Amino acid sequence: MFNDFKITENRPIYIQLKEYLKRMITNGHLIENQKLPSTRELSSLLSISRNTVLTAYADLEQEGLIYAVKGKGNFVSRVETFKSLSIQLNWTDKVNEQTLLADELDLKKHGMRWNKEFISFNSIAPDEKLFDVGNFKRAFLNRMSMEGDIVLNYGYAKGYQPLIEYLLHYMEIKGVDTRNKDILITNGFTEGLDLILSSLTKKNGRVLCENPTNDSALKLFRLHGFEIDGIEMDNDGVNIRQLETLLSKKEYDFAYLIPSYHNPTGIVTSSQKRKEIMDLFSAYQLPIIENGFNEELRYSGSHLASLASFAGQGNNVIYISSFSKILFPGLRVGWILADKELINFLESMKRARTIHTSTLDQAVLYQYLNDGYFEKYLKKAKSVYKRKHELTVHYCQQFIPFKRLTGDGGLHLFIELEDHIDARKLLEKCYQKGVVFLPGNIFHTDNSGHHTLRLGFSRLTEREIIDGIKIIGDTLKNNYGG
Amino acid sequence: MFNDFKITENRPIYIQLKEYLKRMITNGHLIENQKLPSTRELSSLLSISRNTVLTAYADLEQEGLIYAVKGKGNFVSRVETFKSLSIQLNWTDKVNEQTLLADELDLKKHGMRWNKEFISFNSIAPDEKLFDVGNFKRAFLNRMSMEGDIVLNYGYAKGYQPLIEYLLHYMEIKGVDTRNKDILITNGFTEGLDLILSSLTKKNGRVLCENPTNDSALKLFRLHGFEIDGIEMDNDGVNIRQLETLLSKKEYDFAYLIPSYHNPTGIVTSSQKRKEIMDLFSAYQLPIIENGFNEELRYSGSHLASLASFAGQGNNVIYISSFSKILFPGLRVGWILADKELINFLESMKRARTIHTSTLDQAVLYQYLNDGYFEKYLKKAKSVYKRKHELTVHYCQQFIPFKRLTGDGGLHLFIELEDHIDARKLLEKCYQKGVVFLPGNIFHTDNSGHHTLRLGFSRLTEREIIDGIKIIGDTLKNNYGG
Repeated sequence: MFNDFKITENRPIYIQLKEYLKRMITNGHLIENQKLPSTRELSSLLSISRNTVLTAYADLEQEGLIYAVKGKGNFVSRVETFKSLSIQLNWTDKVNEQTLLADELDLKKHGMRWNKEFISFNSIAPDEKLFDVGNFKRAFLNRMSMEGDIVLNYGYAKGYQPLIEYLLHYMEIKGVDTRNKDILITNGFTEGLDLILSSLTKKNGRVLCENPTNDSALKLFRLHGFEIDGIEMDNDGVNIRQLETLLSKKEYDFAYLIPSYHNPTGIVTSSQKRKEIMDLFSAYQLPIIENGFNEELRYSGSHLASLASFAGQGNNVIYISSFSKILFPGLRVGWILADKELINFLESMKRARTIHTSTLDQAVLYQYLNDGYFEKYLKKAKSVYKRKHELTVHYCQQFIPFKRLTGDGGLHLFIELEDHIDARKLLEKCYQKGVVFLPGNIFHTDNSGHHTLRLGFSRLTEREIIDGIKIIGDTLKNNYGG
Repeated sequence: MFNDFKITENRPIYIQLKEYLKRMITNGHLIENQKLPSTRELSSLLSISRNTVLTAYADLEQEGLIYAVKGKGNFVSRVETFKSLSIQLNWTDKVNEQTLLADELDLKKHGMRWNKEFISFNSIAPDEKLFDVGNFKRAFLNRMSMEGDIVLNYGYAKGYQPLIEYLLHYMEIKGVDTRNKDILITNGFTEGLDLILSSLTKKNGRVLCENPTNDSALKLFRLHGFEIDGIEMDNDGVNIRQLETLLSKKEYDFAYLIPSYHNPTGIVTSSQKRKEIMDLFSAYQLPIIENGFNEELRYSGSHLASLASFAGQGNNVIYISSFSKILFPGLRVGWILADKELINFLESMKRARTIHTSTLDQAVLYQYLNDGYFEKYLKKAKSVYKRKHELTVHYCQQFIPFKRLTGDGGLHLFIELEDHIDARKLLEKCYQKGVVFLPGNIFHTDNSGHHTLRLGFSRLTEREIIDGIKIIGDTLKNNYGG
């Protein structure tokens, strides 16, 4: 007995001993009224200090797990450990259709597995080598020293007030008329979209979006039971004629659009087209959910206003964004900017479902933004990503026989191959050579796009980008000629 | 022009200048091709260094908002600011029934307002004066130095692996058979419950719980459209006879129970009763959602195993808990321990809805727990809360003419007054004297309990507790005799 007690590093030993004994008691290996070794015996047996044993015993006594008898020693208390008749429910039978669908649509579960030696074009997450850990620590310590008790305590469903004010100002600078608007802080972009979808009446049960569009939004539309109509993408944004036709033929609840550095195509909707879109939706009195996504990752070209700016005093644009995509995805902080009335409703839904977003995350992010670290980080990140973007474009043009290549900025490119090429089959072949990418049909509303693929380059080195593209190009040529 | 530029402290001035100019451009106050003052002029006009102006101009040029003409100066670029026809949607018409209900049930919106001078018995949040800010900082810096890039990057929907392992071990020590169980990390207890309710089929659409029970759970049951049957509370837990009768009469989807330091009654379900409950639910093959809530806040008495422990190898208990209620509510970290099959489904729902819980929160919490700070904090917190608990019980017994007083530990007591007393009317009168508490009927499944109230004492000083109870007692005596 006690010879299976193993000490692990970096954790107080008295806690380890206490937990070890507690486990022996709760699982019945030490039984009621059994005498424990004296503190002296146990300290010698386990080669630990007697004080450690004393502290562990005192804690166990305080927790009611052992009792001391003066002059006699320590004994195990009565601990009910009787087990009920153990029953086995079949949980697959107990969960609903939506949950089964969530499981089925879960790409992380069903996607290809690869190891760290692979060149993976799957990710469009920021490059962790760029992470500004030093200034992040500074922002944390700054904020904690100012109001550590507030940072660690309950916050408000709407969000951390200094961050809300910062973001309202941030949107104003971008040209958004914020007078009758408000902000709700969410656990990243995804919770924002989910809250909105949970709150809007499914009057027609139909949504318009770009085709292709980002997979996490598609998944949420499907989970919420929406019928999805996708609009084809020209090189300057959605095809307006197709949009007009659809709007005139069917009734929609809203549109979901990503005007800047669209995911997955990387297309930036032109200013002219933004105006046309807004005019159409105003005429049809329809809301637009605008995904602000990588709006900040503009490498060149003129300033482009968000749809929320074009809306002016109008209230039909619901703008969702997040800095996580560029900055720190480990912090789950996003925001919704929308009409005050709508934000007021979403606030109650948010409170009911997750109380509020981590105050710690919000407060440190606020400090980081306010101290100007984000500006500096963005400059550095943009110069690195710009270089990777140019490199990826250059090598794709050189090695991949594509029909169409899009991506004006951001962290990925989108490639359309000749119609007869199946990107999934290409992926299987590239996989054997240690290269993976995302086949484009997962982004399509109608399961089309079998001949398309997305290349995320943000986390790859320049060497990996070049090698990876060459391998994809070679595989294409070897299998389909070229 | 430029004379309304105001510098605020603690933010780089070049960013403030850049934002100021950007706003002037995006809102049309500076127009296309307009010449900007030279850097020398502007620095003198605003009394800031010329370098600051140079940096701001360079950034604006990089963002495409201004352009430089050699030898001539800086000019405003073309920025589309045309506004679309601004339309006004009525969002109250656009949101669904569930959202209107969430708004209606939102106690934070409709509750009484009070100011900081008030003695408020409303809260059962931890006392921020106890917050262990120093060790929290230490845990943060520790974790960041070990793996800052991981902490700041995307994590997994299931949670941060070291924390999951820690919690599995933690539950094992409590006597839970974890062999076929798994853990999902959630944004606090509330997201955990919401995910479970979203995933289980509403086969009968009916749930059993203690009456009263905690208001956030009640709200979620209502939002998910469940019919709620409450079981009366004896002093050692639910009335078993009533439970048996209900189970034999109607079909339920599951029960929701808070066996330790029940909210709002503070009752601890006895070991004997825990076994009876488990036996009954095993016989009826029904799941139990167990709220682990303030399980750690045991001030005296013998060790009590959770229902999850009693279940043994059985898989019908879904255990939800969180340290936030005791430790740092600003960190939104909770967890669900349940059958592996169920956790696998919940993981996909979690991924679809919020991707994952903040890695930062999880990683710092893990470090704090692993370094043994939680144990130390808990000891200190327990001794403070124990004293407040005893004090509250003592003064309630002395000053409040109650019919029943419950609360064996935790951070609150529950009082049942004589039937003819309306706690809401009492509250109105106490409010005039600067004391507030929560009327008990908000916790009841059937809108009963008009003569009950909950007193949370965690955040009050001893002086405030005594004064507040005296005021409630006096108000009762003056209005209802005594």
